[in-house]
Amino acid sequence: MDLMEAIKTRRSIRRFKETPVPESLLKEVLNTARLAPSADNAQPWRIIVIMDADLKLKLVSASYGQKFIAQAPVLLVVCGVPEETFSTIGGYMNAHVIDAAIAVDHMTLAANALGLGTCWVGRFNEDKVREVLEIPEDVRVIAMIPLGYPDEAPEKTPRRNLDDLVMYEKFKGP
Amino acid sequence: MDLMEAIKTRRSIRRFKETPVPESLLKEVLNTARLAPSADNAQPWRIIVIMDADLKLKLVSASYGQKFIAQAPVLLVVCGVPEETFSTIGGYMNAHVIDAAIAVDHMTLAANALGLGTCWVGRFNEDKVREVLEIPEDVRVIAMIPLGYPDEAPEKTPRRNLDDLVMYEKFKGP
Repeated sequence: MDLMEAIKTRRSIRRFKETPVPESLLKEVLNTARLAPSADNAQPWRIIVIMDADLKLKLVSASYGQKFIAQAPVLLVVCGVPEETFSTIGGYMNAHVIDAAIAVDHMTLAANALGLGTCWVGRFNEDKVREVLEIPEDVRVIAMIPLGYPDEAPEKTPRRNLDDLVMYEKFKGP
Repeated sequence: MDLMEAIKTRRSIRRFKETPVPESLLKEVLNTARLAPSADNAQPWRIIVIMDADLKLKLVSASYGQKFIAQAPVLLVVCGVPEETFSTIGGYMNAHVIDAAIAVDHMTLAANALGLGTCWVGRFNEDKVREVLEIPEDVRVIAMIPLGYPDEAPEKTPRRNLDDLVMYEKFKGP
């Protein structure tokens, strides 16, 4: 699929078919995360692929009861590893957050291009997710991404006008 | 350009031609940021488009002398606005960082698809960038992105194997 088309047609999908995700497509999605750029090419992220029904249910509980994440045949939990990068953003923030986000964005676009649906889920209790998946304390949980064939076709959601987001030469409020 | 092709062929570009970026292409790049998803669709980011030579030189100074950012005809400074989102990631981090990162990733892929080059620049002194561009204290600087026609064709940089990044069902070290 054309890149612009992939960006324009991506939706947050919260209903999934039971149809499994073919392994070849899962690999293709994961590979786009692998190719993502990162500060000093540190690649400070990990992706946990969860298909076990019991684990998915425990993660529903760790994410305030968002049942749809367990409905997807695959749930990706993306982690950042601060220890693996010395880079900071602007001198104030370890680079692993943005690096992991780039990898996830690649995957959400790739999934859409392959006919699959995803949703960025950020509402979860990190400690509970850590406990369920045995994630060490020095590894941060960045995103949960259900992945599967969409069973809904949501309308596009509104966006601000470009004029409200873009400024020229200097910051202009609000 | 095909999405997978855009992901596979994107490079960090640090040498640019003097050729200006046509306004239609700049708009197309900016529009892909506009379309990016964000937590609760808050769209908590701003993009400052800098073409003024003097401002660009001051930003070189604010980014530890990285001269190539001023060589690009356009420099995009992407900001996050924490106040515009109530969402957190995992209950521990305001969502604006990841939201802005998604918008930037869209732009870097779109630029590549349009024959333009970019580079994620995270090494800058946030306070100095703020001073040059009159960015308020409650707005964070997330990334600086030079944009222009590439004057180099870098080889692809190495990546870890998928097996080193992907785990199944539980976190497995290191």
